[in-house]
Amino acid sequence: MVNVDDIRQAAERLKPWANVTPVMTSRTLDERCGASVFLKCENFQRVGAFKFRGAMNALLQLTDEEKSRGVVTHSSGNHAQALALAGKLLGIPACVVMPRTAPAIKRAATEGYGATIVPCEPTQADREANVARLMAERGYTLIHPFDDLRIIAGQGTAAWELIDQAGPLDVVLCPVGGGGLLSGTSIAVKGRSPQSRVIAAEPLLADDAFRSFHSGSIQPTNDAQTIADGLRTSLGPKTFAVIREKVDEIVTVTEAEIVEAMRFVWERMKIIIEPSSAVPVAPVLLGKLPLKGLRVGIIISGGNVDVEPMFQALAARWL
Amino acid sequence: MVNVDDIRQAAERLKPWANVTPVMTSRTLDERCGASVFLKCENFQRVGAFKFRGAMNALLQLTDEEKSRGVVTHSSGNHAQALALAGKLLGIPACVVMPRTAPAIKRAATEGYGATIVPCEPTQADREANVARLMAERGYTLIHPFDDLRIIAGQGTAAWELIDQAGPLDVVLCPVGGGGLLSGTSIAVKGRSPQSRVIAAEPLLADDAFRSFHSGSIQPTNDAQTIADGLRTSLGPKTFAVIREKVDEIVTVTEAEIVEAMRFVWERMKIIIEPSSAVPVAPVLLGKLPLKGLRVGIIISGGNVDVEPMFQALAARWL
Repeated sequence: MVNVDDIRQAAERLKPWANVTPVMTSRTLDERCGASVFLKCENFQRVGAFKFRGAMNALLQLTDEEKSRGVVTHSSGNHAQALALAGKLLGIPACVVMPRTAPAIKRAATEGYGATIVPCEPTQADREANVARLMAERGYTLIHPFDDLRIIAGQGTAAWELIDQAGPLDVVLCPVGGGGLLSGTSIAVKGRSPQSRVIAAEPLLADDAFRSFHSGSIQPTNDAQTIADGLRTSLGPKTFAVIREKVDEIVTVTEAEIVEAMRFVWERMKIIIEPSSAVPVAPVLLGKLPLKGLRVGIIISGGNVDVEPMFQALAARWL
Repeated sequence: MVNVDDIRQAAERLKPWANVTPVMTSRTLDERCGASVFLKCENFQRVGAFKFRGAMNALLQLTDEEKSRGVVTHSSGNHAQALALAGKLLGIPACVVMPRTAPAIKRAATEGYGATIVPCEPTQADREANVARLMAERGYTLIHPFDDLRIIAGQGTAAWELIDQAGPLDVVLCPVGGGGLLSGTSIAVKGRSPQSRVIAAEPLLADDAFRSFHSGSIQPTNDAQTIADGLRTSLGPKTFAVIREKVDEIVTVTEAEIVEAMRFVWERMKIIIEPSSAVPVAPVLLGKLPLKGLRVGIIISGGNVDVEPMFQALAARWL
């Protein structure tokens, strides 16, 4: 199990590599919810998402032998790019198994960081078969996107840093997909101040963590097409064990609430966040939690969103 | 004439009111141009633009008599909102003469801060007639959007703060419209280090400052519909006098270059900047200036851009 010292050590280990991302505030947001809200802006992290923390923390702990053989993962999202960049920075070959159906832009971004892409069918079975085959054939080490103790510790460094920057917090919110960020965050927050509350936010359309939390066993994702594309996964055994123990509450939000919160942050705070990041902003902005007078942290997970519609409109009007 | 002490004093005067906006960097941008580039992010300033600095600096220097009578300006852009908020914060009535053709969203934002809007015909003559009438009838003090010494000194505090934050700079770039930001920036930069270069960037479609600079007399704007809507104005006598003396160079950029630079900042730096802010980014990003090995500052003027096309697309796909 990961403990708070693992996170402290991960924070030390990441110092030469990860950005110390800024904490941003909004007078309007504070007025709306009557709290002091601190956004930990991992959209400004390398590769545009907190995922770099976990991937880099994992690769830095490999043996020389493991480093020379290389690593493999399955992801079509931010973890793929994070592992690719971490591998490039450390000279470790990185291989990413990605569904053939993944957007070309994600594939290109991952290849741009120097990783090898192995396409697979968009099924759990084919993905796992490909990963197992590559591990056997090439001796790659698996770096799971979330159900890995080194990943959990790495992701927890965002909340650790937030508390260093913002001071003590009464509540910390973060989104939950596979649970890597949430488990790391809860260990960091409770390790620093056991009385602080950790609240996860999840799309109602993909409320498997909410159902798992309340039923006491891991529930499969409903395969829902939520706009929050980073949060479609279900929990893993390692992340669920932490979440059961340390998380206080999971709130769900609708798709319309996610879009409203995302638009608020874009328009009022002038930062680009991806839909998954808007998920924990929504309950704060929309008054769905009793936060009056409290100091509240939100982990903004990333800013990787396709802005093509905006620039298509600008080009059509102006170019 | 404004001197560097006026800017130092303005910076002091603004301390309780204006945000100390962050300075952001990008590894990719630095690699592309071979320089160390520091973006002074006035998109995070109050009202989302540097204009709050000048408006607040002007209002803070009014006599009690002037404060009680109120202020007037003509603007449909960021200066209108800036004056409205500054007035609200200081309890000074603010009136904005705005063309009937101004977008409803700009009118609403200005009224939202508590200013009174007086609609006029979209002509220079009718705008000036309305301002003159309101000054005579109500005793309002005119706060010109740029051709005013208090405004120039206030806008110069952004570059002043940038040098405090980033250290000495070899070159500072900023956009030029009416010249308030450019003249204030050049006084601040040259006042701190006379050997630093100040370079203005301007849309080729609205190159009146470029033509004025090279002809030695103020040239009218070509009334061009550049995407950089904050930069369509021509210079004023006060701003031109400073610019002639202190600015080293004015570069022009095409509309396509503006959009490319804006997209780069959105996608890679995850911050929302308006087209006018992309104008000085373009020559740096696209290698149009010899900047290798230099320390380069860019004033990012603001982030007020209509994101409706982006959210229309998201809503159509997901809601």
